[in-house]
Amino acid sequence: MQYTESMLSDHMRPLTGSAIRAIFHLLGKPGMISFAGGNPAVSALEPEVIAQLSSQALTQYGWVLLQYGATEGFKPLKESVAQFIEPCGLHMTPDQILPTQGSGQALDLLVKATCNPGDVVLVESPTFLGALQALLTYGVKLVPLPSDEEGVIPEEAEALMKELGPKLMYIIPTFQNPTGRTLPLERREQLCALAAKYGVVLAEDDPYRDVRFTGEPLPAIKSFDKEGWVVYLGSFSKLVSPGLRVGYAATDNQAIMRKLVIGKQSVDVHSPLLNQAIVDAYLRNGLMLGHLKRICRDYKAQLDKMLEKLAQWPAGTVFTRPQGGLFVWAELKDVDATAMFQEAVQRNVAYVPGTHFYCEGGHHNTLRLNFSNSSLEQIDQGMDALKALIEEKSGN
Amino acid sequence: MQYTESMLSDHMRPLTGSAIRAIFHLLGKPGMISFAGGNPAVSALEPEVIAQLSSQALTQYGWVLLQYGATEGFKPLKESVAQFIEPCGLHMTPDQILPTQGSGQALDLLVKATCNPGDVVLVESPTFLGALQALLTYGVKLVPLPSDEEGVIPEEAEALMKELGPKLMYIIPTFQNPTGRTLPLERREQLCALAAKYGVVLAEDDPYRDVRFTGEPLPAIKSFDKEGWVVYLGSFSKLVSPGLRVGYAATDNQAIMRKLVIGKQSVDVHSPLLNQAIVDAYLRNGLMLGHLKRICRDYKAQLDKMLEKLAQWPAGTVFTRPQGGLFVWAELKDVDATAMFQEAVQRNVAYVPGTHFYCEGGHHNTLRLNFSNSSLEQIDQGMDALKALIEEKSGN
Repeated sequence: MQYTESMLSDHMRPLTGSAIRAIFHLLGKPGMISFAGGNPAVSALEPEVIAQLSSQALTQYGWVLLQYGATEGFKPLKESVAQFIEPCGLHMTPDQILPTQGSGQALDLLVKATCNPGDVVLVESPTFLGALQALLTYGVKLVPLPSDEEGVIPEEAEALMKELGPKLMYIIPTFQNPTGRTLPLERREQLCALAAKYGVVLAEDDPYRDVRFTGEPLPAIKSFDKEGWVVYLGSFSKLVSPGLRVGYAATDNQAIMRKLVIGKQSVDVHSPLLNQAIVDAYLRNGLMLGHLKRICRDYKAQLDKMLEKLAQWPAGTVFTRPQGGLFVWAELKDVDATAMFQEAVQRNVAYVPGTHFYCEGGHHNTLRLNFSNSSLEQIDQGMDALKALIEEKSGN
Repeated sequence: MQYTESMLSDHMRPLTGSAIRAIFHLLGKPGMISFAGGNPAVSALEPEVIAQLSSQALTQYGWVLLQYGATEGFKPLKESVAQFIEPCGLHMTPDQILPTQGSGQALDLLVKATCNPGDVVLVESPTFLGALQALLTYGVKLVPLPSDEEGVIPEEAEALMKELGPKLMYIIPTFQNPTGRTLPLERREQLCALAAKYGVVLAEDDPYRDVRFTGEPLPAIKSFDKEGWVVYLGSFSKLVSPGLRVGYAATDNQAIMRKLVIGKQSVDVHSPLLNQAIVDAYLRNGLMLGHLKRICRDYKAQLDKMLEKLAQWPAGTVFTRPQGGLFVWAELKDVDATAMFQEAVQRNVAYVPGTHFYCEGGHHNTLRLNFSNSSLEQIDQGMDALKALIEEKSGN
């Protein structure tokens, strides 16, 4: 018998990931200026430091790092993460921290723990496309949360909760992917209260929080949580290294934590101990603050350059002005950014068409621009090339 | 509103993992002799070698190992794995290898790709309890495959395929977990033919293959596969280090490979690059052969000691005599190994009651004994303590 596509599982069959995978495969092209990824700057990555911490950890802990470990994670890292997230108003014990493979795995495990196929999940609109894909593998029904310039509108969220009885709500509160927007304090408090009132688990995905260039840090949504409805998801991918794949879930909800752990045990037994120990050593050796200062200084210059160039795009272009993170979001006037993409790539510039961040599709006049992984010169040149292309398209 | 257990997903709610988790939590007790785990010997772990390879890899590849990588895996590792599995009759290209978090994640992704809730999955009886749990998170129906001393009986497997139309069949062909049995050549060929005839994806989980002390290596089931029904799952956990979490799936079935990759992308984006590069360097530096020779010499002495002690257990005890791997399987005469477990632990000896390896439960007279992680003295002492306990129980 021949294996055919029709034999695949119902939930995986329709998932092709093709649009985005095609975009990322294009980026290997030499000379390409890419505003498409979500990568940290190469200069933010420290192979020598990591090599040293790796040796340090293997000397300190020896074979323990190479043997099987607990699904619950490497204790020293659980301690240092608990301390690391304290400044955003989170008073968690090490037991309430589960190290995961990036914050992406934390979300995947949370959906597995809480959602049945057909359950409603509320997502920001637009939101991180990787999260949309992860949610779809569980066969849930995605419903977009109406937003304005400040992010999700609590009144609209409440109406949807009343009407649809969602199981889960997925929010990126700080320097959101893809818009770069930050949810203001009052809305954080309101969304947290709504989650508890209507019995909706709130996944607060906050990997960009510490990549702040200006303005004052805000407390996490989770900091207002009295009844364990919010699960806080974090990551060291944007801070230290995505390649190490170290993230975490933080929750004081014991029922959920138990199922996250059992889910993780089934999926990969535990996260690699060496990687956990390296990130732990990074934190304990006090390397984070200085590093964040350096990368934020560089990223701010890159963001400023990108905003300066955006201001020169055709009249009617609307764009965000984030205080941190990795992304700017732009809405073009009467130009289709999805259709324009192939031509942009032919001119050696890439971005992600905004439509991929909407669970309902559409919004073809939008695009996401990453500034962290391009030099000032590349931003100059790439944004000019896009400007020229948009002008051609507007002229049509 | 208060979060309650009833709000968890249908598939995760019943999964407590409690029996086994309780066993493994007990093992931290000082002085405990544990035949319970599946851990390599501490002496088989090489923190200095790994530290050196980690530095070597970070020097050679620099920031590339710390940036985001491809979901498809680190190319050099894909190449060296393809070469590494060549001797078991597998002629795979690097593109047909997907690095995963141990072979456990490879199985998880394969179930995600191929099974709907309610689908029938055929499993050996007994089989690896971690696989049983992973399968159950997908809501599939597990059906045991009748076995004899040589493993799964092909005629019985065929009858079940005809009757039940299973989607997937999970087999550990070499030094099986928990029994230590090896499926003979003819049955490998037969099972492969049956998979193709009845359209059943065969997950061949082969992490113990290279831990062979005596006898001749056999070709993999996958080596007989002409139509892409077998997905070969491997791991470096038993060979180099479980803590690094490096395993892989190998398949020439493009439809399945595509969905494994998309599934992995949703779950954790990619496996950590440093870990992949370390294992790649281990293979390329030619360290594997000598290392396997050393660990197999030690493990054989430990196995021989355990078999010598088992022969002294009360008459009627039946046990396997594996040619490799990490486990011996014993069936007691009229003694309940599940009930006896707590007393064994009080006497500082642990094992895994065999019942946990049966999807249908029961079989309380069986137990799994790991020999790789105990010294000869510990085996001597622990096996004597178990013998005394069994004698007491038989006397009752």
